[in-house]
Amino acid sequence: MQKVKIKMTDQNSKSDLMEKIISLCKRRGFVFPGSEIYGGLANSWDYGPLGAELRNNIKQLWWNRYVHRRDDIVGLEAAIIMNPKVWEQSGHVATFNDLLIECKGCHQRFDQEKMESGKCPLCGKEKFTEPKLFNTLFKTFIGTVEDAKSTAYLRPETAQGMFVDFKQVLDTSRKTVPFGIAQIGKAFRNEITPGNFIFRTREFEQMEIEYFIPVPKIESDWQDVFEIWRKEMHSWTEAIGINTEHIRDYEVPETERAHYSKKTIDFMYEFPFGEKELYGLAYRTDFDLKNHFPEPPYRDNHSPVGEHESYWPHVIEPTWGVDRSVLAILCEAYTEDGDRVVLKLKPYLAPYKAAVFPLVSNKPDIAGKAREIYDTLRKKYAIAWDDRGNIGKRYYSQDEIGTPYCITVDYQTLEDDTVTVRARDSAQQERIKVTELPEYIGSRVGMLS
Amino acid sequence: MQKVKIKMTDQNSKSDLMEKIISLCKRRGFVFPGSEIYGGLANSWDYGPLGAELRNNIKQLWWNRYVHRRDDIVGLEAAIIMNPKVWEQSGHVATFNDLLIECKGCHQRFDQEKMESGKCPLCGKEKFTEPKLFNTLFKTFIGTVEDAKSTAYLRPETAQGMFVDFKQVLDTSRKTVPFGIAQIGKAFRNEITPGNFIFRTREFEQMEIEYFIPVPKIESDWQDVFEIWRKEMHSWTEAIGINTEHIRDYEVPETERAHYSKKTIDFMYEFPFGEKELYGLAYRTDFDLKNHFPEPPYRDNHSPVGEHESYWPHVIEPTWGVDRSVLAILCEAYTEDGDRVVLKLKPYLAPYKAAVFPLVSNKPDIAGKAREIYDTLRKKYAIAWDDRGNIGKRYYSQDEIGTPYCITVDYQTLEDDTVTVRARDSAQQERIKVTELPEYIGSRVGMLS
Repeated sequence: MQKVKIKMTDQNSKSDLMEKIISLCKRRGFVFPGSEIYGGLANSWDYGPLGAELRNNIKQLWWNRYVHRRDDIVGLEAAIIMNPKVWEQSGHVATFNDLLIECKGCHQRFDQEKMESGKCPLCGKEKFTEPKLFNTLFKTFIGTVEDAKSTAYLRPETAQGMFVDFKQVLDTSRKTVPFGIAQIGKAFRNEITPGNFIFRTREFEQMEIEYFIPVPKIESDWQDVFEIWRKEMHSWTEAIGINTEHIRDYEVPETERAHYSKKTIDFMYEFPFGEKELYGLAYRTDFDLKNHFPEPPYRDNHSPVGEHESYWPHVIEPTWGVDRSVLAILCEAYTEDGDRVVLKLKPYLAPYKAAVFPLVSNKPDIAGKAREIYDTLRKKYAIAWDDRGNIGKRYYSQDEIGTPYCITVDYQTLEDDTVTVRARDSAQQERIKVTELPEYIGSRVGMLS
Repeated sequence: MQKVKIKMTDQNSKSDLMEKIISLCKRRGFVFPGSEIYGGLANSWDYGPLGAELRNNIKQLWWNRYVHRRDDIVGLEAAIIMNPKVWEQSGHVATFNDLLIECKGCHQRFDQEKMESGKCPLCGKEKFTEPKLFNTLFKTFIGTVEDAKSTAYLRPETAQGMFVDFKQVLDTSRKTVPFGIAQIGKAFRNEITPGNFIFRTREFEQMEIEYFIPVPKIESDWQDVFEIWRKEMHSWTEAIGINTEHIRDYEVPETERAHYSKKTIDFMYEFPFGEKELYGLAYRTDFDLKNHFPEPPYRDNHSPVGEHESYWPHVIEPTWGVDRSVLAILCEAYTEDGDRVVLKLKPYLAPYKAAVFPLVSNKPDIAGKAREIYDTLRKKYAIAWDDRGNIGKRYYSQDEIGTPYCITVDYQTLEDDTVTVRARDSAQQERIKVTELPEYIGSRVGMLS
């Protein structure tokens, strides 16, 4: 009995946590329902002022880490609407054009006729949607006539852009394998059952790398690169403030893997609504490049078929979701300390790097000095300003949105040109010279280097 | 005769310029045709490694300038697929559902029956598309059934997100008018005749601000804000390297304005293919908020109907296209100096802030030192590396993509720890101490402050 009770409490506190996060997101402008004044649009979410900053910071950290800081990866920004042949050739048009039922538990779809029992073979639940002819591609029409000839699709993943543009990127960047192509962008999937806040939405944003390697001669040729990426993804989760102990590497068994994948790791995170896939890593062999290039598109000294013969490089694909990153970051950062709610975001991810307060707003000397500091700092960083209510309330308000430092200009400032700097996590205060503030803040909130 | 000849030469050199820019973009990986291996997709373009960097730099400059650096503007990131009622209420669903012909010269669409002559009333051309029932909204379907009930649209502008989310942004950011909401994002228009490279595409990216003001009591109340924004847009074009003398403010006459706009300025830029709209600025009155809010959504001391009565703020809307910015920037920056092609990009917009070369690649001391400098600098900036061919060719290659500084490590470096730094525009070289490089480069390539 005791055990059940603990478990229930745990479940309750988790569902509590989710409610608190959703409420905070809405109340403070991180995330709110899309088109809310029209009753919303099933599982569509808009990112408000603070959410937009958090997303930008995640994307910039990622781009800086993988494109700018690395020699072997270049960026790409392909169109969302590509030639429909891309999706025919990749298998997307055909693969999902089937009568499918979807498990209401784990959201996997199955061919009903091929199922041996009424239970989901993956999660064991027995509840399914009605069978439907279903393709997860969002369809649209280009031009003035709505027919098969004009049909196009919204990309369901950014990945195919990197494969289709492989040769152009190769020719213009003069890279040689191993090298990667990175892309950040929106993708769309017509999911039957989206849900869990921003976890599963029909419109979402991906950060993906296609990392091309020579044709492996022995297994370890690809396994070694795979392992490096596996470690790198743990390192990334740490960089965004997720305790790596909360990540479980789930090696997807062969029966559940896409047929072209020789190995897939799902990085599982314990969300309040259960353990779910946060990121993914897959060795996709040469399946994709062979789909798009009838002739081998690449040649170098590593050619498996002779020094001057072209070949199809293999590919390892790490994938990150921006929206899932936001959600996991919020879950990890959300902290209660008595009455105080603190969002312990990594400083470089925080929407505001610091907040500046005049102790009182009706003293021109103090307000003017605070304004001056505010104007100096926001030349480089996103900085908040607050002159309402008392200092305690202002701290509370900044803690809740994760602002790492609060700077208060008071009477002493006018005498010795120092300010109070209060750190979010410790709530400790220290006096800092105004002239030293840019360096003090800058050295504490910058990107990792 | 002389005059005609000059004009023709001028036309030829302009079409030459466009071809040279398109060729450079393709050759060096700024922009190439989307889905090219499948024969492309009419006027769809992908941004390669350098184009992706340039776009990111433009967007970051804009976000920093208008969101971080300003007190009175906050960011937003609304979904691309919104509730279809948004587009019914905004007028988009109804407005374009008409039998239209489109002028092949200026791309304006007209109701054929209402035309008084066979000539386009705007540009005077006489070539039109066949009349078609046409709505520029891209249609898609949410869920498993393709019918009217499941129909949704890809947003044709980011603007409606700011109107629909007006109250949520207001409540969470606690702003008071005048204040603005800024958004960067993709939009889609099913244009009949896209064209001119990346100038007019069906998928494009906008940077928009909806700047809300109190209900004007006298004309100058909105005119003054409008003028401030007009000047600000000139200042922006200067910041991205466009000679303001190349911009012409075209005040759109009443007969051509949207019915709800009391004043519209099109900022015209002399592209190689003719003078076209680069950016726009419109006073949209309270049309949009009234469309979406049956009840007035805002209250403050400026209320025109009594201190405690709510009202609909008016709005001034400056709009920038990311893709058109890229094109205008490239047109302005493209320079020929004898054999040398130089892309004179503003340093903070350049894809690479600097390039590092070892004078020779087969001397470990020199290569190692160059590598060390490269690794240090790219912790903060996008930096290129080149050790192929001779130094002259490397300069040529970096000039062509707009890299502002080339740093060469040579034999002297090993003796006195200095390097050669060559400036792109002047081609002048100077010796700089290695220890001073981060400050030297940093102070020259950072964002405007």
